[in-house]
Amino acid sequence: MESSASKILERAIDEFALLPGVGRRTALKYALSIIKRGDSDVTRFINAVSALKSDLHSCRVCHNICDGDICEICSNNRRDKSTICVVENIKDILAIERTGQYRGVYHVLGGLLSPIDAIGPNDLNIVTLLARVHNEDIKEIIFALSATVEGDSTAFYISKKIGTNQNIKLSVIAKGIAVGNDLDYTDELTLGKSILNRTQFR
Amino acid sequence: MESSASKILERAIDEFALLPGVGRRTALKYALSIIKRGDSDVTRFINAVSALKSDLHSCRVCHNICDGDICEICSNNRRDKSTICVVENIKDILAIERTGQYRGVYHVLGGLLSPIDAIGPNDLNIVTLLARVHNEDIKEIIFALSATVEGDSTAFYISKKIGTNQNIKLSVIAKGIAVGNDLDYTDELTLGKSILNRTQFR
Repeated sequence: MESSASKILERAIDEFALLPGVGRRTALKYALSIIKRGDSDVTRFINAVSALKSDLHSCRVCHNICDGDICEICSNNRRDKSTICVVENIKDILAIERTGQYRGVYHVLGGLLSPIDAIGPNDLNIVTLLARVHNEDIKEIIFALSATVEGDSTAFYISKKIGTNQNIKLSVIAKGIAVGNDLDYTDELTLGKSILNRTQFR
Repeated sequence: MESSASKILERAIDEFALLPGVGRRTALKYALSIIKRGDSDVTRFINAVSALKSDLHSCRVCHNICDGDICEICSNNRRDKSTICVVENIKDILAIERTGQYRGVYHVLGGLLSPIDAIGPNDLNIVTLLARVHNEDIKEIIFALSATVEGDSTAFYISKKIGTNQNIKLSVIAKGIAVGNDLDYTDELTLGKSILNRTQFR
């Protein structure tokens, strides 16, 4: 894009364009919308963004984001503390919470094992997960990781570390066709999984 | 969307969702990307945004945005100061500059006349435009406004104010079929305009 006759606008466009999925044209739209707003609105925007860095903490138990020391899910007495759902990142917690189908707690790994990207076990929150398994009364661990080589091998690595001598059920979320999807449009691997993992109908 | 277990994240999502065209899911994506960044990157982002309000000025001549008193286009000696292109907003200047076809200067109205939205002549930068017409040696005024009732009536109002006694050429940008477009897909009004405003081929 051309220079916009203003270094200040140019710099703001550069910064907005660093947001995920934002091109320079959208960044310009955002910058112009900021210019149009009142001073107090912009101050509120800036404070909210800077609070993300300064005031947000990582939950001491599950590594979810939280405002205090322990996140709302871990400190909620109505959640089932004996079931841990292992996820890659915070977004996955939000996605699962949206379903309203899960009443246990979580553990955020902060990534997946990936030799190509040089991400090893020590780069993930695995030690704290194993500590929870040993110190708390855990009945089930659900791996809700991406259906990729990285997700599968991360689940496999952790299950090996947990070992078989303990009385803990390990499970993974079901792979199958998406609700509302045509069989025609489902890829063979997924369709194969959905046949293998068929559930009783009646 | 559900509550995200963090008031701070929630507030940042609310703020990002105020950007034009941003829903709560995209706002969440933006907020998480900010959390992931380093402190200095976030500080740079915040400074760039706040500079939009604190350091950006409106050009004293044409109301374009600028870092100083007079914008780069108005202070550029190689621009033709006798031709003024009247536009609705700053985005239009950027769009016309991108074409590389215009070497004159601009005047930003800051809106269009619209009785429905209670926008009258005093809400727009019309007085300063008329002052330029009277005080400077202007040869041509080009109306590059939206092809809408508001755009047409704004151009009409300004042309009336300028009057006919002065030796100034008034023009509007051409309406016609878009370059690369099929005739089939062009609406009748535009196609009609493009026939009426045909230009000599050879």
